Amino acid sequence: MRRSVRRFRREEISDEDLKYVLNVARHSPSGANRQPWRFILVRDLEDKRRIREICEAVEKEFYKHVSDWFLEFTRSRGINWMKPHLEEAPVLIAIAAYRRSPHWKESVWIMVGYLILAAQERGLATLTYTPSDVRWAREFFNLPEGWGLETIIPIGYPAEDPTFPGRYGLDELVFMGRWGVKDTFSK
Amino acid sequence: MRRSVRRFRREEISDEDLKYVLNVARHSPSGANRQPWRFILVRDLEDKRRIREICEAVEKEFYKHVSDWFLEFTRSRGINWMKPHLEEAPVLIAIAAYRRSPHWKESVWIMVGYLILAAQERGLATLTYTPSDVRWAREFFNLPEGWGLETIIPIGYPAEDPTFPGRYGLDELVFMGRWGVKDTFSK
Repeated sequence: MRRSVRRFRREEISDEDLKYVLNVARHSPSGANRQPWRFILVRDLEDKRRIREICEAVEKEFYKHVSDWFLEFTRSRGINWMKPHLEEAPVLIAIAAYRRSPHWKESVWIMVGYLILAAQERGLATLTYTPSDVRWAREFFNLPEGWGLETIIPIGYPAEDPTFPGRYGLDELVFMGRWGVKDTFSK
Repeated sequence: MRRSVRRFRREEISDEDLKYVLNVARHSPSGANRQPWRFILVRDLEDKRRIREICEAVEKEFYKHVSDWFLEFTRSRGINWMKPHLEEAPVLIAIAAYRRSPHWKESVWIMVGYLILAAQERGLATLTYTPSDVRWAREFFNLPEGWGLETIIPIGYPAEDPTFPGRYGLDELVFMGRWGVKDTFSK
C-alpha cells in the first residue's frame, strides 16, 4: 500500500513512532554485519530551510540535463526541482553511509526498504530522496572521512493522497530458469 | 527477527508463498517508477548445481584478496567460498537489474528489503547473495543488453538456526542535526 509522498503536514511526529521506525531499520542485514549507516535527524526549521535551498539549487542544475522521457514522467507526477518536502516534513532523516564497508550501498538500501515499511506501519509517509549531488553534505553535517550522505528521507503525516503509480504484473516480471521463459507459475 | 541463513532444507516451498513474496517485492518504489527488475526463478537441480559451481570458482578467487578483518569475520560466522545454499535451497531468485534506469541500484535493493521481509512473514529464510563477479550471468541467463545480474537470493526453509549477530543501539546510530551531536532522543 505504501506510496511515495511529496507533501507533508508540518505536524510533529512522536518520538515513539520515530524510534520504532529507526529500531526496525537498524535490525536490517548488512555486508559482514558492518551496519554502515548513521541517522542524522533534522528537526530544526532553519536547518531544513537551508537543506531545501541547497538541494533545490542542485536539482535545478540536474534538470537541465535530464532525458525527455524522464522530464515527461516527472511532469506527469507533478515533480520538478522544487523540494518543499525538505522544509515541510517535521523530520528529515539524513542517512550517512560508510563507503568503505563491503556492499555498503546494497546494505544501506535494504535498510531503507525496512525503514519505509516500518513508517508505513505507523501511518507515516516517506519519500526516498537522493540528491543528485551530495558533496555539500560533508561540511554541512560534519561527516568524518569515509562517510557520505546517501539519502534524505522526509517523514511525517501526508498532506496529499497521490494515486498509486501502478506496477508490472508477475506475468511480466517472472521468468523460469532463463530470461524470457514463462510458465504457469504466474497465471 | 530476520537473520540471514546459509543452510536450507531441500523441501519445496509452495507457489502461493513464493507468489506472496514476489507480489510484495513488485510493489516497492523505484526511481521514476521504472521497476528496473526481473525475477528469474531457478528450481532445476542441474541449473542450481551449475550456478553453485560457477559462483564457488568466483568466490575462491575473491577470497584470495580479502582483508584480514573480513576473513576473520567470515571465519567466525562459518562463511567461506563454499556456497552449498545455491544448490540446497529449493528456489533461487536471480534478480536481474536494468542498469540504465535512474537510481536502479538503490531501487533494486529497496525491493530486496521488501522481499526478504515478506519471506520472513511466511516463515521462509533468505540470504542476499551478491556474487563477486556476475559477468558469467549474461550468457547463463540470456540477459538482454543493459540488464545485469544483481543478486541471487536462495529461499526456503532453514536447516540452521544462526545466532543473531547483534546490532548497534540507537544511541550509537542517531545524531541530532549534525554528526556526533547526541540528545535525549535515544535514551
